Amino acid sequence: MYIDGLQCSNYDREVLEELRDGRMGAITITLGFWEDAKETLDAITRWRDLARDNSDLIEIATTTSDIERIAASGRTAIVLGTQNTDGLDGRIRYVELLHDLGLRVMQLTYNNQNAYGSSCYEEHDDGLSRAGHKLVREMNRVGVLIDLSHVGYQTTLDTIQASQAPVAITHANPLSLVDHKRNVPDHVITALAERGGVLGLAIPLNFTGEYAESVSKWCDMVEWTVGLAGIGHVGIGTDLGRKQTDRDLTWMRNGPWSKDFEYGAGKPGQEGLLPYGAWMHSTLQFPELDAHLIERGWSRDDADAFLGGNWLRLYRDTFDAH
Amino acid sequence: MYIDGLQCSNYDREVLEELRDGRMGAITITLGFWEDAKETLDAITRWRDLARDNSDLIEIATTTSDIERIAASGRTAIVLGTQNTDGLDGRIRYVELLHDLGLRVMQLTYNNQNAYGSSCYEEHDDGLSRAGHKLVREMNRVGVLIDLSHVGYQTTLDTIQASQAPVAITHANPLSLVDHKRNVPDHVITALAERGGVLGLAIPLNFTGEYAESVSKWCDMVEWTVGLAGIGHVGIGTDLGRKQTDRDLTWMRNGPWSKDFEYGAGKPGQEGLLPYGAWMHSTLQFPELDAHLIERGWSRDDADAFLGGNWLRLYRDTFDAH
Repeated sequence: MYIDGLQCSNYDREVLEELRDGRMGAITITLGFWEDAKETLDAITRWRDLARDNSDLIEIATTTSDIERIAASGRTAIVLGTQNTDGLDGRIRYVELLHDLGLRVMQLTYNNQNAYGSSCYEEHDDGLSRAGHKLVREMNRVGVLIDLSHVGYQTTLDTIQASQAPVAITHANPLSLVDHKRNVPDHVITALAERGGVLGLAIPLNFTGEYAESVSKWCDMVEWTVGLAGIGHVGIGTDLGRKQTDRDLTWMRNGPWSKDFEYGAGKPGQEGLLPYGAWMHSTLQFPELDAHLIERGWSRDDADAFLGGNWLRLYRDTFDAH
Repeated sequence: MYIDGLQCSNYDREVLEELRDGRMGAITITLGFWEDAKETLDAITRWRDLARDNSDLIEIATTTSDIERIAASGRTAIVLGTQNTDGLDGRIRYVELLHDLGLRVMQLTYNNQNAYGSSCYEEHDDGLSRAGHKLVREMNRVGVLIDLSHVGYQTTLDTIQASQAPVAITHANPLSLVDHKRNVPDHVITALAERGGVLGLAIPLNFTGEYAESVSKWCDMVEWTVGLAGIGHVGIGTDLGRKQTDRDLTWMRNGPWSKDFEYGAGKPGQEGLLPYGAWMHSTLQFPELDAHLIERGWSRDDADAFLGGNWLRLYRDTFDAH
């Protein structure tokens, strides 16, 4: 079963059909970046509408048995995630409420430091805060997967240690291969893997660099990462943003906190939306990636683990085990 | 099983012990009066805390089989209700979200006209609005009991007709016996009963008048109402506010909308919190009320219907049947 551990597309029927035609078993979507509690509730209602209106293509999943059942029906399971903790409005009790409404993955920070920890873009990272420690414990208790993408390295390491359940970095690449703040140093990747976590490798040009050029180059990166972390700890989190607009990008980068131009993962000369590599411009191309791995000599088992099995195991360890 | 269809107490362990000692099987509590969506979420989290901290006494119920199981364990089932629709923040989709978080009873208006209809205190009542019709349909679909206490007579009649499920007036008395805006004219009571609804008789002095004087007087009112509506359509909704304070009363009456002194159900000379009759100052006295009914010659079956069975049937018709 194919699972994409992180997407942030604007889903309409066409994009949902791409999921079906790419044989996607499950994807984790992005409810929000800077959205507060009520905006997060509104995003959940929009996803419920979308799922009701396209029940032949998708269904919202809250357990791994949901995911398996939905995938077996030829549809795509939607896992509700958010790329920040702003949806809590500072309330630790909202973890449980949002979980009751379907939330299963929550990223500790987006691009800025917050009450729980620091972001990869901050100059300093003092690690997981007092409230952060409490939040990690509550997410463990309730059964929400902790996502450490965009999070500062020290906060990431602290969280890996503090969490009783394995955690994820759903969409990032190895810093050793691509020097970008969004990417992860080797010692963080190995710490993540040692505690049972999964790193989802991503495709955006900004932080994938030359490895975004072709499926072959990207799989060089995959194999390098598998060499470091082990086959059980690497998956895919494309970070695919189908039908994203400049307005979406500005919200993601500036949120409500900046009136200045913010680059986000971009840089001077790479300010705007960048095209995805021709080999992965939508989830339609997961079967081609699969075929390429087999061509390179991967075993069926290893390909299955990387293409979805590792996420399913991690989801089981977090969603189901609380 | 005893069920109180509406309370608005400030619950602490002492008040919860009164529920146990009064052998209450279930009560519907009040999450809010003028509280918006986030304040309603916060109220839900406070109830979850209270239920966790006092799990030997109470548990939040969302189905009638929950209620039966909890009551059978010697504890009291808590049904989450709200005395207004302000918790929706105007969003029809929040009915489903709040239902997912446990809400089972929602009153259409409190003391003021709103987007859905008119209140008993307004000079005019143009009936159920356009949004009101949509809300009724959505509450029917989702399985939230519609409460028409505090609601204007025309809006009440329109809702009784519009609703596919039977509805409730959880806490009010017959207007024919006590002339007060909060009370309900005969033709509204019979319309409610004809569609399978239940009227919960209340005890506050302001709108119970002389019938609040003694258990005997109050049961005169009960018998009169049963004569009008039928034994299957009358229950108890005490409106009991144990440990309410002047500050609570001011919030209930003035909410965020008035800077002037508002009387609510009171009047000049009866501005403040009024004592309950000595025969029903807490739920401790339900067994005495029960004994009094039997003494008056009520059959066990009729007493059981009035003391809780009718609410349980209505809850089954609404919570469970969606």
